[in-house]
Amino acid sequence: MRFVAEIGKLKGVLRQTVLADEGLNRSENSAEHSWHLATMLLVLGEHAPPGTDLARVAAMVLIHDLVEIDAGDLFVYADAEAQARQDAAERAAADRIFAILPADQGEELRQLWDEFTARQTSDARFARALDRLQPMLENLKAGGGTWQRHGITADQVLAKVALIEDGSPQLGAVARDLVNQAVEAGILQPAPSGAAGVPSRAGGWAGRGAGISGEEDQLHRGDQADHDNDDPQDQRWQTPAHPGSDEST
Amino acid sequence: MRFVAEIGKLKGVLRQTVLADEGLNRSENSAEHSWHLATMLLVLGEHAPPGTDLARVAAMVLIHDLVEIDAGDLFVYADAEAQARQDAAERAAADRIFAILPADQGEELRQLWDEFTARQTSDARFARALDRLQPMLENLKAGGGTWQRHGITADQVLAKVALIEDGSPQLGAVARDLVNQAVEAGILQPAPSGAAGVPSRAGGWAGRGAGISGEEDQLHRGDQADHDNDDPQDQRWQTPAHPGSDEST
Repeated sequence: MRFVAEIGKLKGVLRQTVLADEGLNRSENSAEHSWHLATMLLVLGEHAPPGTDLARVAAMVLIHDLVEIDAGDLFVYADAEAQARQDAAERAAADRIFAILPADQGEELRQLWDEFTARQTSDARFARALDRLQPMLENLKAGGGTWQRHGITADQVLAKVALIEDGSPQLGAVARDLVNQAVEAGILQPAPSGAAGVPSRAGGWAGRGAGISGEEDQLHRGDQADHDNDDPQDQRWQTPAHPGSDEST
Repeated sequence: MRFVAEIGKLKGVLRQTVLADEGLNRSENSAEHSWHLATMLLVLGEHAPPGTDLARVAAMVLIHDLVEIDAGDLFVYADAEAQARQDAAERAAADRIFAILPADQGEELRQLWDEFTARQTSDARFARALDRLQPMLENLKAGGGTWQRHGITADQVLAKVALIEDGSPQLGAVARDLVNQAVEAGILQPAPSGAAGVPSRAGGWAGRGAGISGEEDQLHRGDQADHDNDDPQDQRWQTPAHPGSDEST
């Protein structure tokens, strides 16, 4: 029961995603985000690759953000140093939080969290696909949401769609369709000319900050790069060094 | 995807429960409440009666409040007329919301919701036990929470514990222990003398409003009586007709 009481704190961890449903205009928290993923799984589970264990996926999405109770939520495009600090903080958080449980249960959930984080199994890849897809929907509902706020363009979103496709080709196709809808609706800017899926902007994009492409994320950092928040808050997104932000916000 | 977008509205349905974790002092919403139940299930599922299908229980707790998107949340002790209106509104909401899905999926989730609501199977009874237990924990964390706000006494809470025991004797014992802790800590008032587990108060308690005892709820109204909010807001709780409210708020 101490664990059950402790995890309630996740309701106080705010994400970048802004909820735009009627009567709402506030940041999403990680608990309700996790509920959304698990409930999506009930109806989208049929699009998981054969052999996917949906019960394990459900457990993963329910617990995937618990470490944020201690570590907070890091934006996708934080630099390598911040990301390394975050990784260490999340591991320390996992050590503490799962240890509240009886040893066998704590170990089981810790292994699930490690598996989600490592993103090597099809269960984990499908869980991560859901985690990527849901904020896209919220941005669509919000008429642009964090895409507009941070000047994200379609090529950048499509790079993330690659990670959804990696977990489920069908959900990847759905996500690609959502991107097209958003561009057609004028709430997501098309790729700047010359971008061709990889940002060609100069200045302020060194190191991890340059890892806009999902493929590059995967190559350089495995899974930590595909962090659990679709919505960057790196200060560099706000500077004139990023031409998109002025165009679309 | 229309269903997935639609259900996000549950994040805007507020419950009576007040969250008291550090930095939080606000009403809980039904989406994060549902996440809490599903995650509790991961660690408390071993206390389900033999034969319980935990995957079905998980699905039930994830979707059990979706009807509140249209119908809102009704307090446990609403009178019979309000309850009948709520039942009709929830059925209409279920008709609309589950029909957004492809027919086979919609029917499957509708049947799960009907089963949760009817509370006849052990899966549903276990799901309802979780739904009853979680607000008790939040009230403990809040140093009394809605118990104090509405002048609830230990005998009234124990009557609800009967519904938890009905779903799981082990969780019932845990809940009973929580009640004792709360009384010892002075955040839950003991039963008024003469209450003996069933309220003996006169006036304003006619009809459904008298259904304080979980057993009575079950006998008179099946499951609808054991509604999904532990926290009454019936105006009668605020009147002098209820002696407890002045003592403990």
